[in-house]
Amino acid sequence: MITAGIDVGSVSTKVVLLVDNEIKYLVRPTGWSPRDAGEQTYHELLAQVGCKPENVAYRVGTGYGRISLGFIDKAVTEIHCHARGANYLVGRGGLVIDIGGQDSKAILINQQGKVIDFTMNDKCAAGTGRFLQVMAAALGVDVSELADLAAGRNPLEINSMCTVFAESEVISLLAKGADKRDIIAGIHRSVARRVWGMASRFMPAEQVIFTGGVARNHHIKDQLAREAGVPVIVPELSQVAGALGAALYARELAEKC
Amino acid sequence: MITAGIDVGSVSTKVVLLVDNEIKYLVRPTGWSPRDAGEQTYHELLAQVGCKPENVAYRVGTGYGRISLGFIDKAVTEIHCHARGANYLVGRGGLVIDIGGQDSKAILINQQGKVIDFTMNDKCAAGTGRFLQVMAAALGVDVSELADLAAGRNPLEINSMCTVFAESEVISLLAKGADKRDIIAGIHRSVARRVWGMASRFMPAEQVIFTGGVARNHHIKDQLAREAGVPVIVPELSQVAGALGAALYARELAEKC
Ligand code: SF4
Repeated sequence: MITAGIDVGSVSTKVVLLVDNEIKYLVRPTGWSPRDAGEQTYHELLAQVGCKPENVAYRVGTGYGRISLGFIDKAVTEIHCHARGANYLVGRGGLVIDIGGQDSKAILINQQGKVIDFTMNDKCAAGTGRFLQVMAAALGVDVSELADLAAGRNPLEINSMCTVFAESEVISLLAKGADKRDIIAGIHRSVARRVWGMASRFMPAEQVIFTGGVARNHHIKDQLAREAGVPVIVPELSQVAGALGAALYARELAEKC
Repeated sequence: MITAGIDVGSVSTKVVLLVDNEIKYLVRPTGWSPRDAGEQTYHELLAQVGCKPENVAYRVGTGYGRISLGFIDKAVTEIHCHARGANYLVGRGGLVIDIGGQDSKAILINQQGKVIDFTMNDKCAAGTGRFLQVMAAALGVDVSELADLAAGRNPLEINSMCTVFAESEVISLLAKGADKRDIIAGIHRSVARRVWGMASRFMPAEQVIFTGGVARNHHIKDQLAREAGVPVIVPELSQVAGALGAALYARELAEKC
């Protein structure tokens, strides 16, 4: 059986095709039209895999753009899809922390991937991928370089949590001759602290399962582990956890049909 | 008797000399050194007024930079100085709303200028002068032009309260061909709503006394009046309310000596 999960995030669109137990996936920028991004990424992946649309048994949409998708059979909230996908990837429960391009979530899940409790932030750019983008632009580096630049450096104190005020601090640190790499380490710690400030209420948990686009930043992973004091696991397909969860829901729903 | 109030804000430094009942004042940018800004602005005003430092009976410092001032006799919190100054300027009580360059405050005062209750935001750039600066830069206009550009226009909806996300919305509205003036009107409404969201808990009050640098923006004053549903008064010397309050405290303390 083939089922599909389409996760249209504010920054990137992730599609997973679950071909029996094999995971095929594709990630594309969302751009201006969530509807087009969802549909095009879905059809591009179908073509890559060599699967006809009519052979997909069920399609579940998730993410902030799910409401604009016309071709899905059902929409499921990000929280449930992320929990399901993260649980599948690591095979156990824990505290899922997802940091995306414009939001962050903390979801406590049990061993079966059921949501026990959750919280999310999509109102404030601090503690999201956007914070990193703003800082990278201020420092004249690419977001993808940040982790390597910061590795092993001494994090400088960034006092403001607010993206706007923190950006001014970063510019002022640069003007004072501070080391760019120490500044970046400080920026990463700020993200980890901000997110941990939201997530720590769900402790104790045996481990943190770190997902979302920002989970590819290994230095933030390390800073998060420092805050959490428990192991932080980044599953290999962490960026598509939500889309995978949606495809798993799709399979369950298709089986019920 | 001559007394002085020195209000070192994050963006501008305000000094008031109270020469008997006459108010002399000077406003200068704070720049990188709050200490220098406070001292230089104070001495510049003394020179303007033709007053020797030793003839000033008492000096009170306030504002975020007050701790770095070496030459003052006493430091008093912004909240108390603003309350006192606003009350003196309008001669009555009410809800004082102060929007500065990097913070905003709401202070409920009685007829004698005593603080009944207050709240403030200095953590988030939204609802402060900084929000306006970021938006003005995105629109390529000067902050001082905003009020006139927005007057009489239809405010466009800005959905995000967050400065960073709202800036993206503004850029996207511009790209879609929206009228710059309607966007600015929307930006002003956003500031008024954000601040009113913080201040409205102190209602009912007979009037709002609007102070701080942003109070010079007459369009935000109008938007605030819409939100509040009571008259919004902007006293003539609203920008120096805090420094005036400090000078009034200084007079009281000098009389006690
Ligand atoms: S604190 Fe800063 S980043 Fe967060 S909502 Fe406010 S303006 Fe945005």
